[in-house]
Amino acid sequence: MNWKNKTSMKEIIDIGKRAKKASYELAHLSTFEKDAILNGVAKKMLASVPDLLAENKKDLEQAAEMGLKGAIVDRLMLSKERIEGIAEGLVQIAGLEDPIGEVLEMKKRPNGLMIGKKRVPLGVVGVIYESRPNVTADVGGLCIKTGNVCVLRGGKEAFHSNLAIVSIFREVIEGLGHDPDMIQLVTNTTRESANALMKLNLYLDILIPRGGAGLIQAVVQNSTVPVIETGVGNCHVFVDSSADLDMAKSIVVNAKTHRPGVCNAAESLLIHKDVAEKAIPLIGKALLEARVELRGDEQVCSMLTEAKPATEEDWGTEYLDYIMSVKVVDSLEAAIAHIHTYGSSHSESIVTKDYDNAQYFLDRVDAAAVYVNASTRFTDGFEFGYGAEIGISTQKLHARGPMGLKELTTTKYVIYGNGQIRQ
Amino acid sequence: MNWKNKTSMKEIIDIGKRAKKASYELAHLSTFEKDAILNGVAKKMLASVPDLLAENKKDLEQAAEMGLKGAIVDRLMLSKERIEGIAEGLVQIAGLEDPIGEVLEMKKRPNGLMIGKKRVPLGVVGVIYESRPNVTADVGGLCIKTGNVCVLRGGKEAFHSNLAIVSIFREVIEGLGHDPDMIQLVTNTTRESANALMKLNLYLDILIPRGGAGLIQAVVQNSTVPVIETGVGNCHVFVDSSADLDMAKSIVVNAKTHRPGVCNAAESLLIHKDVAEKAIPLIGKALLEARVELRGDEQVCSMLTEAKPATEEDWGTEYLDYIMSVKVVDSLEAAIAHIHTYGSSHSESIVTKDYDNAQYFLDRVDAAAVYVNASTRFTDGFEFGYGAEIGISTQKLHARGPMGLKELTTTKYVIYGNGQIRQ
Repeated sequence: MNWKNKTSMKEIIDIGKRAKKASYELAHLSTFEKDAILNGVAKKMLASVPDLLAENKKDLEQAAEMGLKGAIVDRLMLSKERIEGIAEGLVQIAGLEDPIGEVLEMKKRPNGLMIGKKRVPLGVVGVIYESRPNVTADVGGLCIKTGNVCVLRGGKEAFHSNLAIVSIFREVIEGLGHDPDMIQLVTNTTRESANALMKLNLYLDILIPRGGAGLIQAVVQNSTVPVIETGVGNCHVFVDSSADLDMAKSIVVNAKTHRPGVCNAAESLLIHKDVAEKAIPLIGKALLEARVELRGDEQVCSMLTEAKPATEEDWGTEYLDYIMSVKVVDSLEAAIAHIHTYGSSHSESIVTKDYDNAQYFLDRVDAAAVYVNASTRFTDGFEFGYGAEIGISTQKLHARGPMGLKELTTTKYVIYGNGQIRQ
Repeated sequence: MNWKNKTSMKEIIDIGKRAKKASYELAHLSTFEKDAILNGVAKKMLASVPDLLAENKKDLEQAAEMGLKGAIVDRLMLSKERIEGIAEGLVQIAGLEDPIGEVLEMKKRPNGLMIGKKRVPLGVVGVIYESRPNVTADVGGLCIKTGNVCVLRGGKEAFHSNLAIVSIFREVIEGLGHDPDMIQLVTNTTRESANALMKLNLYLDILIPRGGAGLIQAVVQNSTVPVIETGVGNCHVFVDSSADLDMAKSIVVNAKTHRPGVCNAAESLLIHKDVAEKAIPLIGKALLEARVELRGDEQVCSMLTEAKPATEEDWGTEYLDYIMSVKVVDSLEAAIAHIHTYGSSHSESIVTKDYDNAQYFLDRVDAAAVYVNASTRFTDGFEFGYGAEIGISTQKLHARGPMGLKELTTTKYVIYGNGQIRQ
């Protein structure tokens, strides 16, 4: 195996060909065989902690040389605990039900044909991502479990860590007598390699970008391979006129501050005008105490001197930080219209005691996840009970919301006949 | 309403905006209201036969001026019977079960959250198609039923017919008090308008090309809107060593000649070497009698003097005509490898009496529809019992095989809480 950096479409095509070839084997491994790989990788990772940390150190040193700091270095860093967490994640995936082979429906047609719809792997899954090495193992695990070959194109910042993790997968797969090309890392981390992957329709069945808005838009704009758009979340909490304001406060603070850097964190607070006078000081002060910067409309700024005036741009911004825009709206309809104008169709929540308004909000708001009286922070594969996720889809095709194992499958029709011809 | 041809992205953006706006109303019409539109359009079409024929005549005259002949003129032509057929199709769609609003699953999480997955419309569906006016009504009907606004960009050959049909839809919709922009025709039929639609991510949720391989590839290559790839079918029938050869003959002749111009017609015949001596003359002669030109490998040509030698290109060709490539293969595995090398993952059939080989073929062949002992011609929405289809997907994302009403929907998570915040 040549892990040297090379720049060429030819290299990517070669990876694609080998992935396609391996996909025919992986698609037909039994659940036992796939789980053996996952458990084997988990075990080997635990046995390789010093090696993994050594490789990760190379990335961290490189990051220091490049002057990288803060969150990006934190995302890049492995530790014994994090490696144990990754291994534990693989064991958990092994414990999930295998979705492959399930026959979703089967019916007998008047002409006697038996037509069944069977769940099968997608085939080859490409993932382009940034600097988190845990993505490498998570994606690898989810893909093995669902019978999909994966082609991973991680960021150059995490090159050594990614290579070490993928090498463990490959060694375990090969050791169990299978084709190691079931998982491949694109070692060329240039923009050219990402662009080449986006045109690899012949070998890739799906391409998933995981990372910031810039990466995702680049893939959506340039890929001819079908893409699942993930991640951008400009999420709102709407405090209706009938809301329990203490509940509203608790939900808003949680949605904003529990983990501000992720896509299901709330970015914008909408308050019904009838409760604005009570709600703005109550919730606003709780947010300020939690060190959240507020950017408000006129009424908010007049009631909270700490709030800065919001610009038009604020309403459409995913801060991913301790900042929240706050607006008073005239009605439930106005709140929904605002969400449709500025939102990203990720997660939206209403706090209300009114039955009709709750149902109306659930019905009318066009988003992957719509909540009544709960924090937007629950939009997540684990919280939804899927055990793991490869991303949160904000598009409507194929998958919407947290993508678990089933979302990494497709179906095929299997038809049993006894000589039927079309009349 | 301005139906004049104008060329600009601005015009397309305007169509998109109005479509998005109308989508919020259409998504929430009741089944009764949607069916009233469909039945109303059917009734008005029957009452408008002379007008529709007059508009269609303009297209036919234009086609004659352009020197168009044969199949394309036939596809373009309306008649009283065809219009009745279209109206009947709309009534049938009205009679189908409304998929919208169904809650696919609902579960209670340990923290008390009730998480449901609800079927909702996609939103705005764009369709780029060629010269068949019936597509206009079919797509319009399927989209109304599923709560989707449609933006139709038909070919210039059918401009007057398409405009007449869409106008009937719009008048009926408006007459029932709804926003007529629930269905819109892009009256600009230049390549620019098609290209503009392919970049309309802000307003289109999905783009479906319906037509020849050239159109489909142009859309797949250029669209940044998520695409459903439809239609190309290089379908095979494999005659296994244990096949009932009379059944094989009947299936092959049906798959090839029942309607050679459609995507589920078979294009290639594979014969196991152990039965080649019997099968080649038996099936070959039946095909020749049905006026099918045969393009065979060496053994086929040596046994049937009428057969021409097949080139490498033949194995990958969707003839859509009375032509079939014929090859002798050494084994079931060789047949599957050939199908994976040259096929388009549409519909593939094995004729066999062997249980294990039947299951192996069903399991291993990667295609939208895999058959045992039946003609490939059954891959069709009506034949599968879905009542209607918007196309046959040959991709793996979102929908695979015939796309009926359910394939024009997406889901959203609806979450009922009582104050839950994430710990």
